Amino acid sequence: MFELIAFDADDTLWHNEALFQATTEDFAALLSGYHSPNWIKERLFATELKNLGHFGYGIKGFILSMIETAVELTEGRVAGTEVKTILDWGKAMMRAPVALIDGVGDAIAACAREHRLMVVTKGDLFDQESKLARSGLGDHFSAVEIVSEKSARTYGTMMARGIGEPRAFLMVGNSLRSDVLPVLEAGGAAVHIPYALTWAHEHVADDALVGKTYETLDSIRELPGWLTHTALPEATA
Amino acid sequence: MFELIAFDADDTLWHNEALFQATTEDFAALLSGYHSPNWIKERLFATELKNLGHFGYGIKGFILSMIETAVELTEGRVAGTEVKTILDWGKAMMRAPVALIDGVGDAIAACAREHRLMVVTKGDLFDQESKLARSGLGDHFSAVEIVSEKSARTYGTMMARGIGEPRAFLMVGNSLRSDVLPVLEAGGAAVHIPYALTWAHEHVADDALVGKTYETLDSIRELPGWLTHTALPEATA
Repeated sequence: MFELIAFDADDTLWHNEALFQATTEDFAALLSGYHSPNWIKERLFATELKNLGHFGYGIKGFILSMIETAVELTEGRVAGTEVKTILDWGKAMMRAPVALIDGVGDAIAACAREHRLMVVTKGDLFDQESKLARSGLGDHFSAVEIVSEKSARTYGTMMARGIGEPRAFLMVGNSLRSDVLPVLEAGGAAVHIPYALTWAHEHVADDALVGKTYETLDSIRELPGWLTHTALPEATA
Repeated sequence: MFELIAFDADDTLWHNEALFQATTEDFAALLSGYHSPNWIKERLFATELKNLGHFGYGIKGFILSMIETAVELTEGRVAGTEVKTILDWGKAMMRAPVALIDGVGDAIAACAREHRLMVVTKGDLFDQESKLARSGLGDHFSAVEIVSEKSARTYGTMMARGIGEPRAFLMVGNSLRSDVLPVLEAGGAAVHIPYALTWAHEHVADDALVGKTYETLDSIRELPGWLTHTALPEATA
């Protein structure tokens, strides 16, 4: 049996990417007098990627990237009131209700009866703590790790601290890039539960998955059942 | 002997507030065509406080608060190029060299020979991890906790996890509000090392200190010597 099951948060426990994509559409509409929506979205994504090294993941960095893109795409002509509109979107994103994904409440409660659970999420410390508190799920998790990057090294540190051996660690999440591949590299097991939307930055090339063993489930509802009939992966020699 | 010594980071290990205050002066100069410097600084501080609940601590929230203040104080007339200037200051703050406070390198190395050390800091996860990595001090600390708020409850959790009893926990920092008072409330010990500049939000009223027992040192250089001749506080009945 797995000793420790870790869950990604955004788009695994609650909806997140939909909020970013909706705000991106609003942003493209705001600047539609200057450029085409597709070009605006392309430039915003490029700015986000460029700024990841300055700002990390999360809503605050996203707002700053929208403002920067607005200044650039309007060659400085963006109005103060338009900047204010972007700031207000950011605050609305921060305050947005935490909408649990269908089946999460029951699935997490069921898993918690048999296993030790934790949350492992990227993003902004302040924002993620606030969302977890508002989610009502907090009591099911014995630990919460908010990390700046989900690398094999990050997962290896968690495994060394929390369990007897890496293969007793299971990660559940929607991102192949962040929740599956680095966990397998660190010697753990992974369940992939795809979300309807994936941020372009999280896409992986198909050939990165060759020879990788992990489970894919349609919904987190299937997780408790899957756990009851799944043994630990065999130790490698 | 203390089992675990925790250090605040900003303005305890490295300079921080000076960078915020210098950028605040630049900001007041940028908008000097609209208002007096004192009024601009007062409005910026009010916006920062109002936004703490949305953004938490750190540089990204500070940049967003500067932009919001600029839009408000100019009644929307702030130019896109001025917004860009503010964004560029933010990135410069993120990249600013980590300047250790005098004596920190030797003092931390000396403490680490006799004690288990950790860092407990507020602020932005991404930014604080980056500063710790660049500080060159990382190897001396067995744990790093980046927290959204330094309350007695936060410290109590650390004490419960890391040591036998609260009084074996010592916190060292520059803020009475964040590093001293909540630690004492949680049953630990504290050393206050004042920094030349204090953010207005960290000020405490004098009467909050009545009846509180903690040490004040002029410089972190004095800490290793103080530790060698200091016994644990007596257990209270």
